[in-house]
Amino acid sequence: MNRVYNFSAGPSMLPLPVLERAQKDLVNYQGVGSSVMEMSHRSKPYEAIIENAEAKLRKIMNIPDDYAVLFLQGGASMQFSAIPMNLARQGDTMDYAVTGNFANKAMQEGARWGKAKAVSSSKEDGYHHIPKITADMLDKDAAFLHITGNNTIFGTTYHTLPEHGDIPLVADWSSAILGKEIDVAAHDLIYAGAQKNMGIAGLTVVIIKKALLERELDPIVPTMLRYRIAADNGSMYNTPPCFAIYMAGLVFDYLDEIGGIAVQEKENRRKAELLYSVLDASPVFKNPVAAEDRSITNVTFFLPSAEETTAFLAMAEGRGMTNLKGHKVAGGCRASLYNGMPYAGVEALVQCIRDFENGLRK
Amino acid sequence: MNRVYNFSAGPSMLPLPVLERAQKDLVNYQGVGSSVMEMSHRSKPYEAIIENAEAKLRKIMNIPDDYAVLFLQGGASMQFSAIPMNLARQGDTMDYAVTGNFANKAMQEGARWGKAKAVSSSKEDGYHHIPKITADMLDKDAAFLHITGNNTIFGTTYHTLPEHGDIPLVADWSSAILGKEIDVAAHDLIYAGAQKNMGIAGLTVVIIKKALLERELDPIVPTMLRYRIAADNGSMYNTPPCFAIYMAGLVFDYLDEIGGIAVQEKENRRKAELLYSVLDASPVFKNPVAAEDRSITNVTFFLPSAEETTAFLAMAEGRGMTNLKGHKVAGGCRASLYNGMPYAGVEALVQCIRDFENGLRK
Repeated sequence: MNRVYNFSAGPSMLPLPVLERAQKDLVNYQGVGSSVMEMSHRSKPYEAIIENAEAKLRKIMNIPDDYAVLFLQGGASMQFSAIPMNLARQGDTMDYAVTGNFANKAMQEGARWGKAKAVSSSKEDGYHHIPKITADMLDKDAAFLHITGNNTIFGTTYHTLPEHGDIPLVADWSSAILGKEIDVAAHDLIYAGAQKNMGIAGLTVVIIKKALLERELDPIVPTMLRYRIAADNGSMYNTPPCFAIYMAGLVFDYLDEIGGIAVQEKENRRKAELLYSVLDASPVFKNPVAAEDRSITNVTFFLPSAEETTAFLAMAEGRGMTNLKGHKVAGGCRASLYNGMPYAGVEALVQCIRDFENGLRK
Repeated sequence: MNRVYNFSAGPSMLPLPVLERAQKDLVNYQGVGSSVMEMSHRSKPYEAIIENAEAKLRKIMNIPDDYAVLFLQGGASMQFSAIPMNLARQGDTMDYAVTGNFANKAMQEGARWGKAKAVSSSKEDGYHHIPKITADMLDKDAAFLHITGNNTIFGTTYHTLPEHGDIPLVADWSSAILGKEIDVAAHDLIYAGAQKNMGIAGLTVVIIKKALLERELDPIVPTMLRYRIAADNGSMYNTPPCFAIYMAGLVFDYLDEIGGIAVQEKENRRKAELLYSVLDASPVFKNPVAAEDRSITNVTFFLPSAEETTAFLAMAEGRGMTNLKGHKVAGGCRASLYNGMPYAGVEALVQCIRDFENGLRK
């Protein structure tokens, strides 16, 4: 099959066995006589699907029992609002580490609810590093410290978590979850859109310490944004995004079958090391990110001119490598190396980089 | 293929040609080398998919140009909050017609934002009819009148819209949209979850008069719940539920190909008439809904005892008819006859009813 190497920042490549499994069962799921898409979310076959998805995610991420797993809608952007509404009272102070575009959007959304404060920012150097945070930098009354674990647009990540003392740590791990081992117990709340490593767009996973579900919320908070409601109803207060949860379950099954996240992480590190090593040795291509803060999933790189960038992107596209254009706020190029991207895709990309350096243009 | 007749209230049966089309293209969409599930929402192939979905929906529903079409997430339940936040100021009066469970939930959610008033209720007779509303019943300052166009749980529907004078009319048509012709221009806002006639769970469509997008909203309203933001960004302020929109587009294509909603409505009326005629003639099965308010998509019916109900449901299940159990708040039985349910499914159901009457139990 003529399958392209899709370097999109998300939605992005899924493991081929997952797609083939979904295709096989699409019209008639395991012989029950209907598609997963047609199943009542209250039916026995669907209940087994959502229960398996949660159980497998708990297994592969090693999620402690005192954390709830919620399957929600609206993307990480909806959580930018739900988090303050659930963890802070109106007017409370909330600390944000501003390491990029989405971190900034999260803070702006927090400002609709309370006092959203930037405890650090790497805006001045174009978000090319992750500023170090120590507990003394935080507001002692902050409802939480919010970080964007991996910055998709700028290609940076936290390799170690910030110090946060007694302030709850909230992390958007949308573009790294399941791509590397994450210590859930070191967080109070983790959230992630599914459309990178977990499955398809339209599902957002929230992993939250159960103790945080107990507080009384402001009556103005919509029922659909209340984590407690979602937790008490097994993510089925209303009809959940059934098919997206099913697809995520297939991805979790797949990761479990290949040996877990540690195995996938090793492969992801191999992919990233190959690409970074070629960029670092290149006379033409540059990666501007501080070496110690480089993301293993999103690798940004730049050519000397807009013309060369366009020529390189066209050359890659001609070789079956798509979506390598950088985000509009960052420019240049970006290769997203999520779990679904095979090592061979990165080999094809580095070959393209080398050929371009050597004057080839197709 | 061993396909069951799934009478679920939603998610529910999809037209088989739609499922087969999705299956065929699942791994490699029209030869582009990736699945729709993997496509960047900013990619050319995906842009064509979302543009087609909107254009086809506008065509088959005859949506006027001064209405925006929004593809959102969170289900109708999320709209219960978004509607007040977009159409009313905090503390404003909003009128609700309480014709069932979801109408009541919508009102309760409105009460988080303003003064939500029940202008009518059919609670006293178990929601078995639709109370008539005239413009003089409405609060002259009401931000809107909210109706639930079709009541999935109780099997009632508005065959004519209420009088509403100058008060904007907002209607939840989740369980009837695309199943019958709806005069969009007679509404100010229509919303619907997709998991009945439009496609799969995880997509909510809002059709709103563009003039209603212009007002300044309270700063506290989350960006993701602002209709103006969704409209200005072509429903892609953040990653939309891409695959659910694709599936909806396939359903819209299918309806267009068979001749439009009028053709489907005629078939739906045939299905409903067959079932109601058998229930009305039955010495055992009863439909309690006022004849003039009967839904053509959700048909409730009751047997004399819980034992007989259980026996009938088991008999139907044994014959490949699933999800006929009534909603827990209504009890009894319910057959949802959405677009995806073939006439043969209703024939099988009425045969089962007749056989049960005649003493058969399998």
